Amino acid sequence: MYNFTFQVPTRIHFGKGTISFLSELKDYGRKVLLVYGGGSIKKNGIYDKAMSILKDADLEVLELGGVEPNPRIETVRKGVSICKSENIDMVLAIGGGSTIDCAKVIAAGAKYAGDAWELVLDGSKIAGALPVFDILTLAATGTEMDPYAVISDMTKNEKWGTGSKFMVPAMSILDPEYTYSVSKKQTAAGTADMMSHTMENYFSMENADCQKFMAEGLLRTMIKNGPIALNEPTNYDARANLMWAGTHAINGVVGDGCSPAWCVHPMEHELSAFYDITHGEGLAILTPAWMEHILNDDTLGMFVDFARNVWGLTGDDDYALAHAGIDALRKFFFETMGIPSNLRAVGITDEKNFEIMAQKACDGSKGSFVPLSKEDIIEIFRAAF
Amino acid sequence: MYNFTFQVPTRIHFGKGTISFLSELKDYGRKVLLVYGGGSIKKNGIYDKAMSILKDADLEVLELGGVEPNPRIETVRKGVSICKSENIDMVLAIGGGSTIDCAKVIAAGAKYAGDAWELVLDGSKIAGALPVFDILTLAATGTEMDPYAVISDMTKNEKWGTGSKFMVPAMSILDPEYTYSVSKKQTAAGTADMMSHTMENYFSMENADCQKFMAEGLLRTMIKNGPIALNEPTNYDARANLMWAGTHAINGVVGDGCSPAWCVHPMEHELSAFYDITHGEGLAILTPAWMEHILNDDTLGMFVDFARNVWGLTGDDDYALAHAGIDALRKFFFETMGIPSNLRAVGITDEKNFEIMAQKACDGSKGSFVPLSKEDIIEIFRAAF
Repeated sequence: MYNFTFQVPTRIHFGKGTISFLSELKDYGRKVLLVYGGGSIKKNGIYDKAMSILKDADLEVLELGGVEPNPRIETVRKGVSICKSENIDMVLAIGGGSTIDCAKVIAAGAKYAGDAWELVLDGSKIAGALPVFDILTLAATGTEMDPYAVISDMTKNEKWGTGSKFMVPAMSILDPEYTYSVSKKQTAAGTADMMSHTMENYFSMENADCQKFMAEGLLRTMIKNGPIALNEPTNYDARANLMWAGTHAINGVVGDGCSPAWCVHPMEHELSAFYDITHGEGLAILTPAWMEHILNDDTLGMFVDFARNVWGLTGDDDYALAHAGIDALRKFFFETMGIPSNLRAVGITDEKNFEIMAQKACDGSKGSFVPLSKEDIIEIFRAAF
Repeated sequence: MYNFTFQVPTRIHFGKGTISFLSELKDYGRKVLLVYGGGSIKKNGIYDKAMSILKDADLEVLELGGVEPNPRIETVRKGVSICKSENIDMVLAIGGGSTIDCAKVIAAGAKYAGDAWELVLDGSKIAGALPVFDILTLAATGTEMDPYAVISDMTKNEKWGTGSKFMVPAMSILDPEYTYSVSKKQTAAGTADMMSHTMENYFSMENADCQKFMAEGLLRTMIKNGPIALNEPTNYDARANLMWAGTHAINGVVGDGCSPAWCVHPMEHELSAFYDITHGEGLAILTPAWMEHILNDDTLGMFVDFARNVWGLTGDDDYALAHAGIDALRKFFFETMGIPSNLRAVGITDEKNFEIMAQKACDGSKGSFVPLSKEDIIEIFRAAF
């Protein structure tokens, strides 16, 4: 285990009806920028309920709707402009990871003199942020309790993650009932996303049993509850377990002290940056291909643990067991959860950008579990094609 | 899963050499009350190192040594008196759970007009506290990242837990090397203590897979690393895994949303209050007896999970499997870890106080996994005798 500082100050209000805690925002000022996505919160009643609570707390609300999946820097800039011109005190996101990530960088941009894209390229430039709050409506990215945000500039085919302690949400409201209306496609993609976070942390050579055994618990939680949520969208416990597991996957509990640099995420970010595909689907498609590519005598032990402790498989032949574990993951993603199983199925129909995407992903994954060269990544893209 | 608010604001600095972070105390004022136990920190160099860092940070240090295992209210009162008369700004504990618990109540007492024992009896009276910091030297109680403290008044044979968000440490330093010198007896008792915390959270009827599967991961971490630490006291990874698992056992990660009222702890607190035994040993002795007592058709499923997922046992007969899981725990505590296996072995040689202890423990465990009557508790004491 290596040295680390663990601090997750976000106050989580978890459970049915916890939207009432939105009244706590009155302790942080008077003017709120409300950030949301395509408007589903206006159909399902969350918007009205939130506005009513904010009004009762004497808060003034300005709005920025229309945040995209793979949120765009242009939208961030709009939000920053409102914060600066209207003297906004805090930012409230209602939505999934994209909306919350957008709100985080808006909050940081509001305290920055230059262009917000500079903060995306270099998180160390973030020297402050307005307080960020959120109501989570999709169990997936874990952004509700982490310092990270991922923003795209599609004019440059660029999608980068940034991070700063100033962007960690001050308070997040997690009501599993608000995820009842999440589609099958997004439920599956969200489950794949949180599993990918857990696996990016899990596969390392550090002797960190505590983090690894807890990560196995998270993966088992997702593997059990993902399919239930898919088939019974209003099953409270399934939605609750997915939601809480997704949060823990990236808040440091299973990553601090052992996690290497992530490498599947940098590869997927290139796919999203060039083809605007659904992040969780891209991760699901790449992960088994990545696993097969890096399986060797050095990594075998981790894959045997993965097969035994996550999938409950048994056997005496280690390589057979390792492959069976990867097969189990593949079947889970592509059969049980119904995720498209290759790049062609999500609309990436030629290999013309593999080289440039591999070059960029390779720069982003230095220090990963098994370091990947540009050629390695091209091979993984091809295997996933 | 039931509703909960999760917040663990403690900043943890984990790893070798993290004592250097003690310099952060200068941000909290100028006068420090240093609280410690029997003086081992003067032999192993931690005291000198800490004093040097505090001096370099221009902090003035007053001292309160001699905190007892099962810390006494008399010592708390001494500390409160120093804080009040010397205008202390913060409290720094260097030691194990007893020392840190004592420091927490001193910090709360410093902000309270009445007698500190009132705060032990009723945590809701705690309306503020000086900031608390600690350097942990024993992996066991998890107090380094929780709001709780347990204090005894031996003149009344009373030992009670209290809690308040104001007592959560602001910053804790966890250096596994500082536990190298922990004796076999205390290593075993500490492992039993953290396993008991995990099991008190684990056994419940809530459908909280996320918390339960992570708890299984913590238990597997302790079961694997406890014996290594016992036999190789300077094995860094074993000490590190035990230390971090002990912290997570009680910081809310595996308890919030599912944990019932604890019931083994209230029983053990009576043993300590009447006989001043080692807390972790008392818990180890009582837990298997408690398990056998509450095993029935309603609880069977939890015990089958415990046997399968924690101990890796298999079998078709659920009751046989449940008993095998309890037997595995018994063997782990009393054979592998060498903990005394019954109450007589820790000096409780007659049953004269069973009735009064059972009455008090029964009041303290309302709402537990399986509610226990006074008669139930007497039977458990007898089975553990």
